[in-house]
Amino acid sequence: MESSPARIGIVTVSDRASSGVYQDLGGPAIRKALEKILATPWQALSCVIPDEQPVIEETLKDLCDTQGCCLVVTTGGTGPAPRDITPEATEAVCDKILDGFGEQMRAVSLKVVPTAILSRQIAGIRGKSLIINLPGKPSSINDCLHAVFPAVPYCIDLIGGPYLETHPEVLTAFRPKKQ
Amino acid sequence: MESSPARIGIVTVSDRASSGVYQDLGGPAIRKALEKILATPWQALSCVIPDEQPVIEETLKDLCDTQGCCLVVTTGGTGPAPRDITPEATEAVCDKILDGFGEQMRAVSLKVVPTAILSRQIAGIRGKSLIINLPGKPSSINDCLHAVFPAVPYCIDLIGGPYLETHPEVLTAFRPKKQ
Amino acid sequence: MESSPARIGIVTVSDRASSGVYQDLGGPAIRKALEKILATPWQALSCVIPDEQPVIEETLKDLCDTQGCCLVVTTGGTGPAPRDITPEATEAVCDKILDGFGEQMRAVSLKVVPTAILSRQIAGIRGKSLIINLPGKPSSINDCLHAVFPAVPYCIDLIGGPYLETHPEVLTAFRPKKQ
Repeated sequence: MESSPARIGIVTVSDRASSGVYQDLGGPAIRKALEKILATPWQALSCVIPDEQPVIEETLKDLCDTQGCCLVVTTGGTGPAPRDITPEATEAVCDKILDGFGEQMRAVSLKVVPTAILSRQIAGIRGKSLIINLPGKPSSINDCLHAVFPAVPYCIDLIGGPYLETHPEVLTAFRPKKQ
Repeated sequence: MESSPARIGIVTVSDRASSGVYQDLGGPAIRKALEKILATPWQALSCVIPDEQPVIEETLKDLCDTQGCCLVVTTGGTGPAPRDITPEATEAVCDKILDGFGEQMRAVSLKVVPTAILSRQIAGIRGKSLIINLPGKPSSINDCLHAVFPAVPYCIDLIGGPYLETHPEVLTAFRPKKQ
Repeated sequence: MESSPARIGIVTVSDRASSGVYQDLGGPAIRKALEKILATPWQALSCVIPDEQPVIEETLKDLCDTQGCCLVVTTGGTGPAPRDITPEATEAVCDKILDGFGEQMRAVSLKVVPTAILSRQIAGIRGKSLIINLPGKPSSINDCLHAVFPAVPYCIDLIGGPYLETHPEVLTAFRPKKQ
């Protein structure tokens, strides 16, 4: 088991992408970014689902509990519009919310666009999995992922997940020295 | 209907101002700030109410649902004192909370006073209305309103409200280009 | 009563420290920091308890309601691990949460370590007491306490507690001028 690759869920939440009206750009952008960041072998479990809270909740639960993903990253559905419901679904399935992720992602995005304050992205813990909401736009995904990822491997250590290593020329995973 | 002016609620929450002990300075300060910012014709619906949660909730509901305000701005009642209850009333009537507004208003106010961390200001969506809590002090109202207003017109677009335009020499409303 | 010293609770939340496996370093670090900051006579009420939510809640209630502490500061139990439950216990006993404290402590810690976003520290009001979660590491305690303490005396004024003064060469307590 120890040598099996880490499993990471990538969930695109979009009515248009899930119905085929619109090509999913967010999911592939996350996958590409993670391929550059991670040195540890890993396996992507990707899916594209509509902005329906029960569907999002079931998908997150399945990826965390059944598929054993140590990390699940979503894209889409974090704005103020009526159909934007990803943070509500995430909060509903999480044991703990980590407010610092949303704060940091908004702070980084605010340097680019003042509408970053409209983003309701959150992150939280479900069992041994970390779930992070990313924005829908591919251009913002990289900024947000790079803003929080240095803390992700240590977070996954703390909740009993696999030891993730990064390519240091891309991004350094920070682990505090033991007291 | 399209040419009717946008309606904006301005709610002063203050026991002293509503009982006449104290002149309402916050409401007029908001009105004056919005007059400078907005280029679109608009109409103010102002009221002064006590720090009573049921009264605040009913006032917000009426302005959003019956009066059709696309934006409702409050002043007062956001501190840690026992009678400060505006954020609780706001949260109770909103469908979604936009944490980025409170974060950004506190970040801006922190540059002026360290007690900005005592402010519990929030913003949220109720139906087709955006509700924003501003501080009680006229001197802080301008800082906070200017800090978040660049994102307000696009937020109102996303929830189905009127298209608001600003005087660019005062403040630029940001709308992302469509993907 | 007016001349009796202010009472401040210092709560170390740690399974290891409470069972004696590990020396409590956080509690003494807080006490030492407060001794340097406060000019007003004060008395520390210290305790070391395990990471059990009911125990934390009872301890906080006792320090606020029975012991009459105007300020209760905790250390430990604010991370993402399963046993980290201090913020949940704090939120459960508070009337109001002051989000600005957590935001500011994370912003300051982020300048030192990127894993600061994993901290779930909050602060809130219970009756006439302010409760603040600090991190577990003594090195971070000072940074966080100094980041928020300038707003603490005015907060305690607003909730009806004693008038606290600080040593200005260490830290200036900010009180806004009355309108």
